[in-house]
Amino acid sequence: MPEETKRVELVWEGDLRFRGGEPGGPTVLVDASGVAAPGPMAALLLAAAACSAADVVHILGRMRVGLDELRVEAAGRRREQEPRRYLAVHLVYRLRGRGLDEAKARRAVELSIQRYCSVIHSLAPDIALTHELSLA
Amino acid sequence: MPEETKRVELVWEGDLRFRGGEPGGPTVLVDASGVAAPGPMAALLLAAAACSAADVVHILGRMRVGLDELRVEAAGRRREQEPRRYLAVHLVYRLRGRGLDEAKARRAVELSIQRYCSVIHSLAPDIALTHELSLA
Repeated sequence: MPEETKRVELVWEGDLRFRGGEPGGPTVLVDASGVAAPGPMAALLLAAAACSAADVVHILGRMRVGLDELRVEAAGRRREQEPRRYLAVHLVYRLRGRGLDEAKARRAVELSIQRYCSVIHSLAPDIALTHELSLA
Repeated sequence: MPEETKRVELVWEGDLRFRGGEPGGPTVLVDASGVAAPGPMAALLLAAAACSAADVVHILGRMRVGLDELRVEAAGRRREQEPRRYLAVHLVYRLRGRGLDEAKARRAVELSIQRYCSVIHSLAPDIALTHELSLA
């Protein structure tokens, strides 16, 4: 398969705990009971938030912003019936940096969401995605 | 918001490393450079694999199968252009257990994929999802 294929392996460790990663690479734990590690639906939100946050770090670096702090809060509203998929996801970006103004922050976040973030673009398009920005 | 809302917080730790989890809960690292932890697109596959694997553990438990081993390998083919979203995902389920036969294994995996797995059902429906089963 061509190199644009991403592969992971996941191994059951008992109860509802699973450890996985790319072959030969670092691993993380996923705990569907949420005790030892975030569960799968939290891991999905974390993947989306980290994907977009990494874009924002890249884009602001190109804008020569000295980023001091970046936090992303994600909230996903789930369907009540099975499958308990997400119906809506809201992302709050909190940023602080030297040379950072609202226009630059907004541009970086919107470029990520609209054009670059491969996790967000892998989500079902009927998940209502909203976001807000907070500069400290 | 109602309790079916899942919340996570993600904090930038420098370079392309991010740590996050549910508020007050355990955290995991996501490293978009893939060095210290799986990156966001690997984390997305791990979330899908763990979600489905947890379903399989549950369903086989209800079938009174004594599961000894469960591994899930996931491969996701990405678009070459940005956004580098997934176009196709293939899941390989490897199972071993007492009282486990192919019909039970197939039923558990298909129930997860078709009815229960909330991560898989949050993915874009045009991602071609295929799977196979291997019993040891």
